[in-house]
Amino acid sequence: MDTETRLELLEARNELHDLISRYAHGFDHQDAETLRSIWRQDAVLDLDFFGRFEGIDAIMAAADQYWTAAPFMHHWMANPLFSIDLEAGTATAATELDCLCTYVEDGTSHIGGRYRDSFLREDGRWLIAERNFDIAFVTPMPDWKPSQGVEAQPLGAPAKN
Amino acid sequence: MDTETRLELLEARNELHDLISRYAHGFDHQDAETLRSIWRQDAVLDLDFFGRFEGIDAIMAAADQYWTAAPFMHHWMANPLFSIDLEAGTATAATELDCLCTYVEDGTSHIGGRYRDSFLREDGRWLIAERNFDIAFVTPMPDWKPSQGVEAQPLGAPAKN
Amino acid sequence: MDTETRLELLEARNELHDLISRYAHGFDHQDAETLRSIWRQDAVLDLDFFGRFEGIDAIMAAADQYWTAAPFMHHWMANPLFSIDLEAGTATAATELDCLCTYVEDGTSHIGGRYRDSFLREDGRWLIAERNFDIAFVTPMPDWKPSQGVEAQPLGAPAKN
Repeated sequence: MDTETRLELLEARNELHDLISRYAHGFDHQDAETLRSIWRQDAVLDLDFFGRFEGIDAIMAAADQYWTAAPFMHHWMANPLFSIDLEAGTATAATELDCLCTYVEDGTSHIGGRYRDSFLREDGRWLIAERNFDIAFVTPMPDWKPSQGVEAQPLGAPAKN
Repeated sequence: MDTETRLELLEARNELHDLISRYAHGFDHQDAETLRSIWRQDAVLDLDFFGRFEGIDAIMAAADQYWTAAPFMHHWMANPLFSIDLEAGTATAATELDCLCTYVEDGTSHIGGRYRDSFLREDGRWLIAERNFDIAFVTPMPDWKPSQGVEAQPLGAPAKN
Repeated sequence: MDTETRLELLEARNELHDLISRYAHGFDHQDAETLRSIWRQDAVLDLDFFGRFEGIDAIMAAADQYWTAAPFMHHWMANPLFSIDLEAGTATAATELDCLCTYVEDGTSHIGGRYRDSFLREDGRWLIAERNFDIAFVTPMPDWKPSQGVEAQPLGAPAKN
């Protein structure tokens, strides 16, 4: 491969990784601008039994509903694997999820599984075309509470809540 | 450093990172082909008190036993640090593990620790020569159940199991 | 962008990522040399209600106190996002934390949140100028015990503690 192709591959991998990170930051911080920026207009988000959404507007409407139902979410992504076809302008990724979601009505669930992404390059920019989540587990954590508004503590002391 | 060397270093790091991710995907999805592809023929996998295995065939036989004993595993890798010697064709990594293993007989354990890898480049391709795991903790989680086959739920609702 | 700039951006991202990983390895393994190596002399570490420390010596003194108060820590970092200005020699990152800290007096807390880093390049080397942690939760885990010194087990068996 020539230098240009090698650089493009390295850069593409970082861009794809960023899309995956921005999905997590967007959801976890209710950051609609970041979450909206990662999709193609007609993107599909298929979250297994959590729902299937077609198009950015449907995805963002779903996010709004999630944020109301589960105001605390943490999507820790791990083990990303990428496959990139520069000439075709297509790529895929498989990335593991370790997640906590705290629902207003039902408390906290520990959720795990694997995302499978398809990406397309549009005007030189990579975007998610389709994101599929395969659930591995959804485990209720009745004793797990997210503490918020904890008070200042002396050095090294854990929070009490 | 010249451009060629700099590109090779950047590419090597990504390849090494992929080996670590493929170990996790291979184990967690019982994907023998992926798991087999990451090792040198005479590779050593030393998992601390979980066992020590020499050679790909012994590693794969151990994986088969793990998959029978603990059908649900999640290896979330974090904080990878690499050291690469291109000229020698050698490299090392230190990577943290956050893991859940659900055993048929004893339920779920939360496992943490650090992998230390040695890699060798063979015919232009990086492979794991030795992987050592230093256990930090193995904590029983008697109340943690992996839910499988959960039914479809309305948007945003957590699974009940 | 020319090849030199593109290479520098790719390398800078890896260096910044390494600083974040070394913070975690340094803290979790009580590795003072690694932890000390990542900061500018006048760096600020602001850990929200856990404390605010100015200068490497204050940061290292705080680490010593943490290591006494909480001998077992695990900082699993995820979802790093970087913004790099090569010409200015500045960069920022936002990275999620999933953490367990076991305190001598109060047991284990599960801690989550987001680090925001500012970096400066000094003599061609990136260092952390300021690290701010925004706590999302600090959740007591009264039943979670780090098992240490577990005995050898047959293949695939979980540790009993």
